[in-house]
Parts: sequence; structure tokens; C-alpha cells
Amino acid sequence: MADAAIRFGIIGCAEIARKVSRAITLAPNAKLAAVGSRSHEKAARFAAENNFPSDAKTYGSYEAVLDDPNVDAVYVPLPTSLHVRWAVLAAQKKKHVLLEKPVALNAVEFDAVVEACESNGVQFMDGTMWMHNPRTAKMKEFLSDKQRFGQLKSIQTIVTFAADPDFLKNDIRVKPDLDANGALGDAGWYCIRSILWVADYELPKTVIALHGTELNDAGVILSCGASLHWDDGKVATFHCSFLSHLTMDTTAIGTKGTLHLHDFVVPFQEKEASFSAGTECWFNELVSGWEPPPSKHTVTTDLPQEALMVKEFSSLIETIKVKGSKPEKKWPTISRKTQLVLDAVKASIEKGYEPVEVGN
Amino acid sequence: MADAAIRFGIIGCAEIARKVSRAITLAPNAKLAAVGSRSHEKAARFAAENNFPSDAKTYGSYEAVLDDPNVDAVYVPLPTSLHVRWAVLAAQKKKHVLLEKPVALNAVEFDAVVEACESNGVQFMDGTMWMHNPRTAKMKEFLSDKQRFGQLKSIQTIVTFAADPDFLKNDIRVKPDLDANGALGDAGWYCIRSILWVADYELPKTVIALHGTELNDAGVILSCGASLHWDDGKVATFHCSFLSHLTMDTTAIGTKGTLHLHDFVVPFQEKEASFSAGTECWFNELVSGWEPPPSKHTVTTDLPQEALMVKEFSSLIETIKVKGSKPEKKWPTISRKTQLVLDAVKASIEKGYEPVEVGN
Repeated sequence: MADAAIRFGIIGCAEIARKVSRAITLAPNAKLAAVGSRSHEKAARFAAENNFPSDAKTYGSYEAVLDDPNVDAVYVPLPTSLHVRWAVLAAQKKKHVLLEKPVALNAVEFDAVVEACESNGVQFMDGTMWMHNPRTAKMKEFLSDKQRFGQLKSIQTIVTFAADPDFLKNDIRVKPDLDANGALGDAGWYCIRSILWVADYELPKTVIALHGTELNDAGVILSCGASLHWDDGKVATFHCSFLSHLTMDTTAIGTKGTLHLHDFVVPFQEKEASFSAGTECWFNELVSGWEPPPSKHTVTTDLPQEALMVKEFSSLIETIKVKGSKPEKKWPTISRKTQLVLDAVKASIEKGYEPVEVGN
Repeated sequence: MADAAIRFGIIGCAEIARKVSRAITLAPNAKLAAVGSRSHEKAARFAAENNFPSDAKTYGSYEAVLDDPNVDAVYVPLPTSLHVRWAVLAAQKKKHVLLEKPVALNAVEFDAVVEACESNGVQFMDGTMWMHNPRTAKMKEFLSDKQRFGQLKSIQTIVTFAADPDFLKNDIRVKPDLDANGALGDAGWYCIRSILWVADYELPKTVIALHGTELNDAGVILSCGASLHWDDGKVATFHCSFLSHLTMDTTAIGTKGTLHLHDFVVPFQEKEASFSAGTECWFNELVSGWEPPPSKHTVTTDLPQEALMVKEFSSLIETIKVKGSKPEKKWPTISRKTQLVLDAVKASIEKGYEPVEVGN
């Protein structure tokens, strides 16, 4: 496999790129080929600190990575405001694009990325790692089972973490010119993606932000939430924040079952992950206990979810290279839907919490 | 203790009265003394089926229970629309009042109950059993600990169950002349109480019902939700429904900790109950796991929570009887606050999801 391994270039030495570098190393069908930073010194240090192979290239610019003929795919962990420029350019240079989330500042920007990828025949995938944990597929089996879960009725998701003072002052995610959507773009992205994942990517008709959005002095969202509404009566709520203790919940309730997990974005442990599934739970005769109670399901994995993401992305690229097939549209499609809902939540906040129809 | 045991009369042979009869039997300072129904035959059958002692009285009316000089306290499991009439009358007859929840159709009605109890010097308590589980006190220790939980930021509660067709057609909780607040009064009561319990009973300033309330043909709520907002930025959401699988979640998030439990109303098991508490959880170095993950805490109990409720209520009555002290105001106060929030949610639904200020 080593010869056929997809060769990755990384543009930008963000903190998250360390995790993804390791994932590229771990994935059996991928390898690190290059890293570029605005400073060559920084790129070289990053390569040294992250176990890049000795033949990997280090560059003092992002462009050089995109121009390297020995790079098949680029991973883009740059601030969101730079995504459209660099993802489009990467696609134009025929590089497959693994783009960190949130994918763009809004769906209009993202559409430029999708168009560039499509017209250049390159694969697009966003960096939502939990999608690739085998637990996710196992949970989907439960949610799709009409006998065990029934009809989906409601979803609640929460992603919060208590950012430290340095983060709240200096992180790109609180800067209006970098990640302008703040906690909504970062933590809220996961909340919205999880809701759409549960709902089989059926877009809600309407979203309404919850009152009480917290902003920093520059107007960037530090905490917010919303309710999402579908025509068939399904309802979802989410809450995301940089100001509360680490919490990563997805709750999905159907007519016959309930799913719970508290670590959906990053599992408590790398190599195994659990969820709780209740099916036709009811009470004992005197309503003093449950019969049956929900049960715990644990799914193990040899590779961490981020390596499985790289593996899946690389596998799609292999298919394109070997068979000349078209890129898999599923991935840009679900990225775009996530962005559309995110945009609607932001619009609702800006309109003073009015209901906003989700675009298409 | 048997001689000093508080003697309970039950008015109405509702299903829930079976559970509370057993609880009265189990509580060391309480005993079953009488039961009244509109039919004497029904009362006699109820007494026989629920292990009433041989000297307990059975009556063909509610009044007869209230007139029985050997009854100290009455448990009132009647439909909500009858609460004000029978609870007021019980208080006037100097009987202490254990009133099933929801306590009233609205706070104005409930105030008549409180006034009657106060002016007659009798103890009031509502039938919110989970308050008395020792787990509840243990969780409150966690929530009150500034080092482990920090400052409260948000709360999410869910109480749903999938009512069967017979319930949805015939149960008192779907009848506008009986329990007119439907799922909001029944399941929503627990959601609101849990939110207030987490918030140390600080009333929210504003509530806003979530769009998507489901009503039956008679206009009774089958499913709804709301967000609650405090001046200091705290936010809570809840969802309650008769149309979704059994789910009983409380999630509370502070700046330093997170509390989770999935069986807050009725514990999975009668004699032990657990919750999850995370404190200063963060990620490992590459953000591929949590350090530390949340921990599970289990609290055992000799008596089920409903027996502990009866025990606590009876203990308060003993104090009044023995020391001549005044009734404990905590219990009617928190019942009233729960009702005030419930009323505001209902008003928001009726006003087309406008924000409604919580009364006082």
C-alpha cells in the first residue's frame, strides 16, 4: 500500500494540524509529503515535531505546497476566513481538499469551494472527525431501526468548553476577521452536523435562535443556541458555548427509542466509544423502576476516528485515481447543509431571534 | 414509632395512589388510615388490593375521609381541576395536604390552596418524589461546589413517554376538563422543577415557548418545550411530550463541571441511583480523548424515593404536632414557583411564542 499511499500536504501549522498529521501517519493508505507555513522555519519545526518522514518537503508558503507535484491532497486547517481562497486554489491545482470545519463563513463562500472541487474533479471532505468513528455507524443502525427507535421526534445537542483567558483574548475563533462565527462556527458546527446526521440530512424548514446569545467586545459569538423545526413536527435544539465546562452531548428521541452519548465529538477514549440506547423502555408495575432500562453499547476501533477520516478520504481519492471515477458528492453535500443551517441560525440572531427559513 | 405514626387518608383511587399507598406503608413514621372514593366498593377494593391495615377505614366519598378524626394527613391524587376544591377543604378540616403534581391549573388557584394551608396551620407538600431520593441531595452537593461545578451556565431537561392509544384517548391528562395542561402539566412539571432545583429556585425572568407545540383535538398539549432566561445570562431549555419514547434527562452545565442523569424522575432501579459528574474535564495532548472523563456516582437507598417523600412529609407533621411549630414553607414555595413558570410557558404558547415575564 505504501507506494499507492495518498500523499498529503498541510498548509498552515495550526494546533489541530498536529492531530491530523498523526492521523495521516496512522492511516494505512496515506502519508505526509509536505507542510507549508508563512515561515519556512515554522514549517520545518512542525515537520520535525510531528514525525514527518525524512523525504517530506517543508515550504515557506502555502502556494509551494499546492505547486508540489508530489502532493495529491491538502489538509487546510487555516482560519475560516481564508478557506475559500486556499481551498479554491488547491482545487484549481488539482489537489484533493480536506478542509477543517467550519468550512466557510457562509454557504455562498462554500459554494465557490464546491464549484472549484467539482470542476477540477477533486474530492472534498470536511474535518468533522466523529463522523468516521465506527460508533457513528453503529448508532445509525439503531436510529434507522423502526423496531428499536421508531419515528424520530426530537434531537438535542450540546457542545461547550470552558475556554481559558488566553483563548478568549487571542484565539482565531474569537477574532472577527478570522473565524467570524465564533462559538457557532466552531462548537455549533458539531451540534448542527449531529442534528442533521440524526435526521438523515433532511434540512429543517425553519430555525429560531434562542435568546441570550453572548458576544465578545468585537461582536463574535461566545455562546448561543437555536431550535430547528421540520414540517413533520420534528424539533431539535442545540446549545454551544466557549464559556461552559466541556460537554459534548447528542440526544435523539424516537417513538420507540432514545439515544444518548456525552462525547460525540471527541470520544472519552481513543480506542473505544460507547453510547446508551433505550428501546421500548417502560416502568415496572408500581412505577418505581424501569423495565428494561437503556443499555450501554461499546464499539472498539484500532484506529482513532481522525485516522479513519484520513483513510476514508484517501480511499475516495484512490478510487478517483485508479478508476477515473467522479468525486463522492456525499461529503460536500453534508458540509453545505451544515453551513446552510449555521447561516440561518446566524441570521436569526442578527434579526433579533426571528424565525428564519433555511436556504437551499 | 407506630403509635406516633402519621395517619394518612387517600381521596381518590388513582393509579398513582397505589404507589403512594405502598410508600405510606414503607415509611416508618406513617400509616394508612383511610381511603375514600366516589364509590364505597371501589374504596374497599383499593384498600384490599393495597395492603391497608385491617383497622383502616373505607369510605364512599372524599368528604368522609376529611371528616375522619383519625386521619392526620390526606394524599390527593385527583385530577388537577379538582385540586383547589379538595385541597382547600382538606386544609379547612385541619388535614395536612400531600397534593399530587401538577398542584393546580394555575398559580391563582394554587394560591387558594396555600392560603388555606397557612391559615389552618397544616403542612403542604406536592408529590414530586424524585426530590426526596438521596441522589438528589448528593447531586446538589456537586452543583453547589464552586470548585467542582463553578458558576451555573445552562440547564437542559427532557421528560417524555410514549403514551399508548388508550392513554391518548382516555387518560385524565389529555382531557381539557381534568388535567387541562396536558403534557406541560404532567411531564413539563418535572422539567421545570428540575430546572428550578438546579438554579436554587431562582425564578427565570422570561420564558419563551419553542415553536411546534402539539395539541390534541380538544386543544390539550401533547408535546411542547420552552427556553428560560435569567438576567445573569443563565439559560435553560426543556422538552416534554406524551408522544416520544421514555426519556427523563437533566443536564446542568457550569463553568467547571457538568451533571448528567437520564432517570431523574423515576430512577432506573428503586434501591440505587446514579449520575455522571464531570469536573474540569479537558482533552489529552492530541485531543483524542478526555482527561479526566466524567465519573459515575451511585447512591443507594433503603427506602424508595416515594417512601422518603412520605417520611419527610410525616416528619414535618410530627414537628407541628409535637412542638406546635409552623409548617415548613419551603415546600409550598417551590410548588408555587414551579407553577409560575408553567403558567408563563402556557401563556407564551397561547401568545404565539412571544416572550412572557414570569410572575411572582
